[in-house]
Amino acid sequence: MEVPPPLVLKRPLFVPSKTLMGPGPSNCSQRVLEAMSNPVLGHMHPECLQIMDEVKEGIKYIFQTLNDATMCISGAGHSGMEAALCNLIEDNDVVLMGISGVWGHRAADMARRYGADVRYVEASFGRALTLDEIRAAFETHNPRVFFIAQGDSSTGILQRHIPEIGELCRQYDCFLVVDTVASLGGTDFLMDEWKVDVAYTGSQKSLGGPAGLTPISFSKRALSHIKQRKTKPKVYYFDILLIGQYWGCYGTPRIYHHTISSTLLFGLREALSNFCAMGLKNVVQRHRECSARLQLGIEELGLELFVQQEKDRLPTVNTIKVPFGVDWKKVADYAMRKYNLEISGGLGPTVGHVFRIGLMGENATLEKVDMVLSILNEAIQSIKLRAVERSKI
Amino acid sequence: MEVPPPLVLKRPLFVPSKTLMGPGPSNCSQRVLEAMSNPVLGHMHPECLQIMDEVKEGIKYIFQTLNDATMCISGAGHSGMEAALCNLIEDNDVVLMGISGVWGHRAADMARRYGADVRYVEASFGRALTLDEIRAAFETHNPRVFFIAQGDSSTGILQRHIPEIGELCRQYDCFLVVDTVASLGGTDFLMDEWKVDVAYTGSQKSLGGPAGLTPISFSKRALSHIKQRKTKPKVYYFDILLIGQYWGCYGTPRIYHHTISSTLLFGLREALSNFCAMGLKNVVQRHRECSARLQLGIEELGLELFVQQEKDRLPTVNTIKVPFGVDWKKVADYAMRKYNLEISGGLGPTVGHVFRIGLMGENATLEKVDMVLSILNEAIQSIKLRAVERSKI
Repeated sequence: MEVPPPLVLKRPLFVPSKTLMGPGPSNCSQRVLEAMSNPVLGHMHPECLQIMDEVKEGIKYIFQTLNDATMCISGAGHSGMEAALCNLIEDNDVVLMGISGVWGHRAADMARRYGADVRYVEASFGRALTLDEIRAAFETHNPRVFFIAQGDSSTGILQRHIPEIGELCRQYDCFLVVDTVASLGGTDFLMDEWKVDVAYTGSQKSLGGPAGLTPISFSKRALSHIKQRKTKPKVYYFDILLIGQYWGCYGTPRIYHHTISSTLLFGLREALSNFCAMGLKNVVQRHRECSARLQLGIEELGLELFVQQEKDRLPTVNTIKVPFGVDWKKVADYAMRKYNLEISGGLGPTVGHVFRIGLMGENATLEKVDMVLSILNEAIQSIKLRAVERSKI
Repeated sequence: MEVPPPLVLKRPLFVPSKTLMGPGPSNCSQRVLEAMSNPVLGHMHPECLQIMDEVKEGIKYIFQTLNDATMCISGAGHSGMEAALCNLIEDNDVVLMGISGVWGHRAADMARRYGADVRYVEASFGRALTLDEIRAAFETHNPRVFFIAQGDSSTGILQRHIPEIGELCRQYDCFLVVDTVASLGGTDFLMDEWKVDVAYTGSQKSLGGPAGLTPISFSKRALSHIKQRKTKPKVYYFDILLIGQYWGCYGTPRIYHHTISSTLLFGLREALSNFCAMGLKNVVQRHRECSARLQLGIEELGLELFVQQEKDRLPTVNTIKVPFGVDWKKVADYAMRKYNLEISGGLGPTVGHVFRIGLMGENATLEKVDMVLSILNEAIQSIKLRAVERSKI
């Protein structure tokens, strides 16, 4: 038997240029894209380690933390969730999941595989969890680890009260894991001040970097707990005591753990550099202003936002109810076909119910907001008109 | 408290251009580098899924397999090792590690974390495992899974007899995992014909792609075993039943599993396209010729190869004994400082004992062989001379 070379690989690579205004990835700037065509570097070369150091400093800034154990996991955002849970959880630990969309369920799937005793506290549909609900769940379950997404990209819900949850976790001797994949850069996040034990974020959202490297940070308290585990974390690839040695986090010699992608490092470094130059507060302010304008525009179009309370709305991923009788998929297809613009549908519990419009990084500008509003309206009207015409035939 | 933006990120990105002739990564071609500055794509966009399909076909070709469960893990080569073990192993399974360098030990670390009962069969220093040694170990341990690196990059040892090991595994109802990270493209590998159950390889070696996406394939037999597991694989991120759905392996609708890096996909796609255009047999032949010339040159320089038996030498990563009284680090530093050329030292058991010279992908040419020989010789002579001069003072 011989497997022949595939014909499809004889064709040239085709990559269209799109405006990515779904829940992420968002577009990278030209600076970031160009950085990624630099020659690759060895994973232990001093220039590569230097860039890792620079990236590490950038991550400390965006998380507002002084944690030594600040690094990237070499994988997608999901690998950040894995690393957070894998390092904290030992068999039969009670892990409480705050649910306001799909991400708590995803974390639950991971945690159970690591041997955790998983419990839930679930918000009512379209609302954030209240502090009272969380307090009651702590009372009932007395968790070892509490997981919550600051922004749930499936519902567009922003979970405020992270500072109060941080206090609560200290009272219960519980570790607080905050998923900031979709929220960071779009809303305040002060890791140290809020007593967050583990935070990770997406590189390909408000940061404007490429997907594939996931910034993560562990508090001193979490780190000392991990050092005292009875058993090794279940995954070598996610073991932050080892990864942190490679990233030079602990003042010990650098030890090879895996081959980091220098290409992605270049891109992330440039994205962080750009982010730092703009300044965290300005970036957050810009994302908020864009979302406010979008929300206003949505209401002016006679459409309705999915998240009822304004204060519970995530500025980065905005959810809009699909009007009655309109097929969301046709609207999204229209925008993509005619304008190369991504408007996304729902995910998990919101599939079919919402559009998701991402205003992140390069795409968090007032011009893009006006553009997406105009195209969304045109697409909905066009789909409605077609439906009316079809019904006449 | 406020963490200020780091000053280091105000400096421009600095990436030197080097010739990477260590154990990997190897240099990417200009075509691959340029592909990675294309605009990013959404992870569920049809153009992205199309490129994934093309990459999948390319991987089937390089592994010479028709396996449906052929995909990439979104992570470094180590994540391929994780995925192979994570999906096959259940608690207390006996896993036998073939050791001819560091990689069997690394796999052992991972497997133990997954709950395996790990056993070893170890080659004598500087030699490949013999078939008799492996047979005896099967007799003793009756393993559920057998792991072996076809090429161990720490020692430069090539493990032949994979076809015979494939037969042996069938006799013992054992699953055969072959690490081809360092060997693929430099030596024959026929996954289906040799009855290999899981194979994975490095993208950044002979393939000439970027690090960060790891090609992997599971046999029908392995897949049906995985479908019948009593427990879920311990890691969601490495669960190939889920990843394979995202990669469209099973004829079921594509389901979002994680956000793949479209940037790395572009690079890997172009590397595979180039590899396919050259043809597997020609690529292997070229790597063999380059290694033969290097081996001859090394002996002409009065140096000695680490692997005694010629037939046990891996063509891609060549190990050369460090001459008595010479500091390998000074030699490597000389080559890097004067020529931007990477010559590597040992890893694990070979640290301080060997130089490692990689002849892979773009760097597997006769011109590069002559260059590296000439520079290695110059560097050694220069270091020796300096030592003599210093002893006179």
